Amino acid sequence: MAKITERSPLAPESFPDLPVVKGVRFAAAAAGVRYAGRTDVMLAHLAPGSTIAGTFTRSATRSAPVRDCQAKIGGEDASDGAAFLVNSGNSNAFTGRAGDESVAALTAAVAAALDLPQSRVFTSSTGVIGERLPHARITAKLDELAGALSDDTIADAAKAIMTTDTFPKGASATVHVNGGDVTIAGIAKGSGMVAPDMATMLVYVFTDAAVSRADLQALVSRATDRTFNCITVDSDTSTSDTLLMAATGASGVEVTAEDTAFATALEDVFRDLAQQVVRDGEGATKFVTVEVTGAASDADARTHALSIANSPLVKTAIAGEDPNWGRIVMAVGKSGAAADRDLLSIRFGDVLVAEKGWVAESYREDMGAAQMRQPEITIGVDLGLGEGAATIWTCDLTHGYISINADYRS
Amino acid sequence: MAKITERSPLAPESFPDLPVVKGVRFAAAAAGVRYAGRTDVMLAHLAPGSTIAGTFTRSATRSAPVRDCQAKIGGEDASDGAAFLVNSGNSNAFTGRAGDESVAALTAAVAAALDLPQSRVFTSSTGVIGERLPHARITAKLDELAGALSDDTIADAAKAIMTTDTFPKGASATVHVNGGDVTIAGIAKGSGMVAPDMATMLVYVFTDAAVSRADLQALVSRATDRTFNCITVDSDTSTSDTLLMAATGASGVEVTAEDTAFATALEDVFRDLAQQVVRDGEGATKFVTVEVTGAASDADARTHALSIANSPLVKTAIAGEDPNWGRIVMAVGKSGAAADRDLLSIRFGDVLVAEKGWVAESYREDMGAAQMRQPEITIGVDLGLGEGAATIWTCDLTHGYISINADYRS
Repeated sequence: MAKITERSPLAPESFPDLPVVKGVRFAAAAAGVRYAGRTDVMLAHLAPGSTIAGTFTRSATRSAPVRDCQAKIGGEDASDGAAFLVNSGNSNAFTGRAGDESVAALTAAVAAALDLPQSRVFTSSTGVIGERLPHARITAKLDELAGALSDDTIADAAKAIMTTDTFPKGASATVHVNGGDVTIAGIAKGSGMVAPDMATMLVYVFTDAAVSRADLQALVSRATDRTFNCITVDSDTSTSDTLLMAATGASGVEVTAEDTAFATALEDVFRDLAQQVVRDGEGATKFVTVEVTGAASDADARTHALSIANSPLVKTAIAGEDPNWGRIVMAVGKSGAAADRDLLSIRFGDVLVAEKGWVAESYREDMGAAQMRQPEITIGVDLGLGEGAATIWTCDLTHGYISINADYRS
Repeated sequence: MAKITERSPLAPESFPDLPVVKGVRFAAAAAGVRYAGRTDVMLAHLAPGSTIAGTFTRSATRSAPVRDCQAKIGGEDASDGAAFLVNSGNSNAFTGRAGDESVAALTAAVAAALDLPQSRVFTSSTGVIGERLPHARITAKLDELAGALSDDTIADAAKAIMTTDTFPKGASATVHVNGGDVTIAGIAKGSGMVAPDMATMLVYVFTDAAVSRADLQALVSRATDRTFNCITVDSDTSTSDTLLMAATGASGVEVTAEDTAFATALEDVFRDLAQQVVRDGEGATKFVTVEVTGAASDADARTHALSIANSPLVKTAIAGEDPNWGRIVMAVGKSGAAADRDLLSIRFGDVLVAEKGWVAESYREDMGAAQMRQPEITIGVDLGLGEGAATIWTCDLTHGYISINADYRS
């Protein structure tokens, strides 16, 4: 049974004050899917004319709702509007035909309650794998949800989708583009089973800009690659990872994939949400930025950065506030990407630790130790080989991670 | 500072009674490289006529002694004999030119003490990375070591090379081949920073068979692929992994790479040592065999098996004795190798857990829970796609791993 544990020490002070996105309304309810005494279902209604885009896990064993979303994304954007329905407590993954039946039952019920075509209802489920989703508990709440829809309750939606999260996650931006103001607001959940492979968690982002379906997908895919696909908590990839974005057009401001100001604002919102997921990494006590430069290519830089960010030995050293740069050397060496021991340099924050294949002359252990005591740590690695660069965000590996995952049946 | 912690619950009852291998003599000494109150250097002398083979880490940041061994392996087999010198406490890795100088000093000193060509002296170092090896402490002990060489002290050698190991590791076989009896005996160290990429730890194996250098290398490479390259503790690969094997020929029995009985006995010794390394996995409380069958190819089976064996979520579930088969599904799904959810089946030991994409009708949670309470657990996955198969041995991920690695400066 998941319990929302003590708030992560890396959490933001409070949930941000998210602006209303015209054309989107939210509701949350306590359906008792698995958890007692908390909300566990959220419904979002998108106004007629909204376009929808998404990215999903690449897992070969992805869940029934992910498969259903993938089949629907890219389909006709009906003028009738659309809806997202999300439950926590049960992922409806690896549930065979029963899983597909649950998705059909949920999407049919939402379509009926909101007078939408079933093809415009997208669902996600997160929680335990391999148990039949008690979808009747959710459909029984649909009238209540539909009646409660409101444009200022996105914070309630963010809470309803949490599992082992210790804080709800939200981010927003307002951007002036093409002569008007448009708003972007998003929520996310995720703290374990997170690795950079597509969406890597549940994320829902909304804008009142008017964006064509193709442009919205292009904007979403590009921003995902630079944000959600650059985080890792434990190298494990969920069967349910989903990012859905809706553009309602209610601002009347038209935006295309070429509008840099909008693309930048969207990437900022995505990055903020992605980093919040890392800050809520199961058991995390340190927020770690791994910056790799000087690699033979960007792909090589990413391989090195992920090798460092996913190494249990690096992550436990950080947990222990041990400036154990030898483990960085190890992780670079094992990654399989090009490296030359005698050109390699390493820094912690702005402290040069090693250069040209050995400890830097200026380095003293207490300098590294001081860096390691910070709650936010930057590990810099320069390969000295070329222009390839990549940044990955991750967290440390602590007793808290073991406690959460040796006890929690996710 | 490494301390030899409480003995692993998965350790064998005692160090095996290893037979004398004619032509090999051992000595151990306390040189104080880093540890106090224990031996930390071992010397093995190989009689004239011995052939030497080896496998090494593929790490791009491999240590100075590994580079030196790689340069020497395959060189002229001098009639003068050979020697292995191994220290614990300092890996002499990422130590730049100073590292090469230490290797040169050590090999020169051993060559002088034992009247060997320097090209026939192979060294290994294991322990902290990035600190200069105080090699003078070792060379100061060489006369003592040379004078103490004895054919019945392999157990002392096994102890001297330990770092975070909680028990010394040894294995042996005697095999009748080509009309005579030959003996194989080996020792190993390793418990963390272990992943299947070549030798993955320090291993020294000796036989009194007469084997040509090329045949010995072929035998070693084949057996390594099927044993040491099939274990993982934490997916991290050392900068110092080394396996060295010597065939002294002192039995007078000639063996080639085609002698199946010898090859099988050698593989048995390698597998025994490899599994002992897993049994001493840092913090391990469970010995786990991952058997993947029905994959599209052997390579795919290995990819799936490693994805399961390295998944932090699978390993923590095992630590918690939680029959959380959903995490097996997740690990198969993320591996990147071919899988079809609706053909997949999973078992714990002989209990069928899931088949055809969902929980098996016959399965009850208490059946899985009973399997998980065993100290040795087999996870079986059948993809239902083809004939590909692979077996990987691993252990669970516990608070003990975090404690050892957040505190120990390796």
